[in-house]
Amino acid sequence: MSDELMQLRGEVRKVTEEILRMIAKRRELILKIADIKKRLNLNVVDRSTERFLLSESLKLSEELGLDKDLTKRLVSLLILDSVKIQEQEIGKTQEIGLREIFYTALELQRSGKKIIRLEVGEPDFTAPQEVIDEACRSLREGRAKYLSPYGLYELREAVAQKMNDLFKLDLKPENVLITCGGIMAIRIAIEVLSNLGDEILVPEPAWPLYKQIAEQLSRRYIGLRTEMVNDWTLKNEEIRKSVTATSRVLIINYPNNPTGRALDLSELKRLVEEARDLGLTIISDEVYSGYYYHGERAPSIAQVLDEGYVLVNSFSKMWGMTGYRIGYIIGSKEFIEKAATLLSLMITCVPEFIQRAALKAIEDDEYVKKNVIETKKRIDYMLEKLSKCDLVEVRKPDGTFYLFPKIKIPNFNSSEFALKLLKEHNVAVAPGSGFGNYPQHIRLSAVKPIREIDEGIEKLLQAINQLSS
Amino acid sequence: MSDELMQLRGEVRKVTEEILRMIAKRRELILKIADIKKRLNLNVVDRSTERFLLSESLKLSEELGLDKDLTKRLVSLLILDSVKIQEQEIGKTQEIGLREIFYTALELQRSGKKIIRLEVGEPDFTAPQEVIDEACRSLREGRAKYLSPYGLYELREAVAQKMNDLFKLDLKPENVLITCGGIMAIRIAIEVLSNLGDEILVPEPAWPLYKQIAEQLSRRYIGLRTEMVNDWTLKNEEIRKSVTATSRVLIINYPNNPTGRALDLSELKRLVEEARDLGLTIISDEVYSGYYYHGERAPSIAQVLDEGYVLVNSFSKMWGMTGYRIGYIIGSKEFIEKAATLLSLMITCVPEFIQRAALKAIEDDEYVKKNVIETKKRIDYMLEKLSKCDLVEVRKPDGTFYLFPKIKIPNFNSSEFALKLLKEHNVAVAPGSGFGNYPQHIRLSAVKPIREIDEGIEKLLQAINQLSS
Repeated sequence: MSDELMQLRGEVRKVTEEILRMIAKRRELILKIADIKKRLNLNVVDRSTERFLLSESLKLSEELGLDKDLTKRLVSLLILDSVKIQEQEIGKTQEIGLREIFYTALELQRSGKKIIRLEVGEPDFTAPQEVIDEACRSLREGRAKYLSPYGLYELREAVAQKMNDLFKLDLKPENVLITCGGIMAIRIAIEVLSNLGDEILVPEPAWPLYKQIAEQLSRRYIGLRTEMVNDWTLKNEEIRKSVTATSRVLIINYPNNPTGRALDLSELKRLVEEARDLGLTIISDEVYSGYYYHGERAPSIAQVLDEGYVLVNSFSKMWGMTGYRIGYIIGSKEFIEKAATLLSLMITCVPEFIQRAALKAIEDDEYVKKNVIETKKRIDYMLEKLSKCDLVEVRKPDGTFYLFPKIKIPNFNSSEFALKLLKEHNVAVAPGSGFGNYPQHIRLSAVKPIREIDEGIEKLLQAINQLSS
Repeated sequence: MSDELMQLRGEVRKVTEEILRMIAKRRELILKIADIKKRLNLNVVDRSTERFLLSESLKLSEELGLDKDLTKRLVSLLILDSVKIQEQEIGKTQEIGLREIFYTALELQRSGKKIIRLEVGEPDFTAPQEVIDEACRSLREGRAKYLSPYGLYELREAVAQKMNDLFKLDLKPENVLITCGGIMAIRIAIEVLSNLGDEILVPEPAWPLYKQIAEQLSRRYIGLRTEMVNDWTLKNEEIRKSVTATSRVLIINYPNNPTGRALDLSELKRLVEEARDLGLTIISDEVYSGYYYHGERAPSIAQVLDEGYVLVNSFSKMWGMTGYRIGYIIGSKEFIEKAATLLSLMITCVPEFIQRAALKAIEDDEYVKKNVIETKKRIDYMLEKLSKCDLVEVRKPDGTFYLFPKIKIPNFNSSEFALKLLKEHNVAVAPGSGFGNYPQHIRLSAVKPIREIDEGIEKLLQAINQLSS
């Protein structure tokens, strides 16, 4: 072997060691910073410092002829390490979330207790009969073999056609990928649109799975604050002050879980423009689009942009098909190709008999309408009951089947309250702290029969009154 | 804000910049190395150099009090970047794999051509009738709601019981996770058992999806060479010389796709011991365990180890349920808990009606036996036909439904051959280069009726003879 090669390898080793020494030095500095933050009671995360460090690093990296992606990954690795070190030094509290309440409720039910489940986001109706029939027919015809990861062409066609009809668009089957439900769709969209260490921005309060999925994919989750006093509106300055060079994706979810807030078309346009100006790609999670109380369907990102967006939807909530695990992604042809490869590395393909069932579902608008009308009744009933209590402030939702009331008791802790309510009053609600820093709020699902809602809210109000007295 | 904090942040920035400068310096050195390797016609990847760099870095990192995982991630990031730079400089060729042949065959079929598909790894029988009936009954009973990500307790129980009966074990339902097929199981296992940048070792020839999944998960795939002249035996020294400080997982797949090689219990024990001595955790992919021609079931890793292994299996191949997408993972209770969380972030849960169908399947051993006997006949028929050609050398498989013959023509290129065979003779086979560096081999699947096999092999041998003359 060449002496020169040997020598060069020795030099590589030395430089690598030098890098490690620098990282150790950096660590010492971070520990000192943690100490000061602890003394001054400052937040661990300081976005403006991060933004500055990243932009300076990228400038230098360009001067040095370094690969931009490598620099981003490296610097975000160092930043995340700094955050971890500081959190370890300062200490971080874990809140009880939806998952804990969900499992505790299940356990109590199994032990024989009657629990009123107002925490679950699952409709109480099942798929329409013709969908069940079609799934069975397809199974009997042996439609259960390996299939293209893109999904059944007929179903992709039907999804595109449906969107075109609803919103006067020109989507093609090639813009559609069939997935196993919304979670897989969100996951795939994040993976295709961002790299390791990139930032995923999400207006809060937000469905907790966005954070869990992003972090499991080694992306960094950044929550953007919205407030009930501002009608849960995401302000442009909130996005702007949160964006850094590694911010890649903005996930929006309107009608929103948990607030029920929807955007009208002009609001949606303004938000989309702002995000694009900042270089973000938008994933629009529209799984509640049918649960919209100002029209047939909530405004869609597909009406605002021709391309460069990713839309996620699912058959779960609208057709009561939660356990079928079927949904879809709409995006550019190039995006869909990458997404299909990812899907093939996750599950090969979506079962054909389930896709054929979904093809029946999509034709049945009446079923959705009927269920949405029933849901609206339940929400109105819940709203009316809650309005009788001065300690509860609630916003009338534009869509979804959720309410996200604020409990006006000083230092109200939604996690403690939800656990106590479940154990002492047999009513399960989702604590607001599971959706971001909203300890004053709880989420209620109106997907139960009126008499259950009646009893559940009665007990909830009792517990709130007890707490305040 | 404290002046001290400002000052410390400035220092952090300086150190970060210093790190970037070092990386740029490292890059210069790597480019020089690429140049030498090009001149001397050396491999880009040199495992002993990597091993040395990693172990030296870890030693230093310990001295410096750095986090071990951070060091590993960082150094493997640098190593992978070096490999990338060198590959860009030297150039790398892309081989045609199974996927390309598969899609070309599909396209030709759609255009009306009759193609004999010997490349697909999918049985030509469907699920047994009682499985289809059970799926339909469950659908009609509305068993299509959100479920625990662990899977149906009854099915987990049945899987554990089946293993206990077959191999005299003491597995509990808590050791079992139900997944959407083998790919999801492999993927989850890799994610739970390793970190970003860690190495996944796989004896080759190997199912190409291991590599694709590992790389998509930002793990590094390392193929371990085996040869037909050694009866496809994985030698201990081959593992030992490939292991570095970031090697975490060994995936084994016996009976093997594509070679048909199975291990007897003592061979399996020796392999497992060697891997454990080297600090590797084993994922044993046993999806062909029922296709075993020296007994009812191929030896299982569960017979060798009490814990610390992960076993993957599926209902696809044995019960003809490829399109149902259902399989399972067996592992320690702690592993299964982490795996279930991952599954919930991928698909929420496996549809209940599909799990109930699988519960029927697992009771039906006779169906598996009947199909395995039929498959064996087809394999024997294929073997006999191939034996008539001197240019083909083939090993009698211990299991699976594959043959992986070597074509004894100098400079035989399996990718080119497979494409030509498909286009000119309407027969699809899988090129050996899709399974590792095996350009002399092709993979044949014996999951077609005898008359199709007859015609397909006839045409294959014609093409081989044409090529040699």
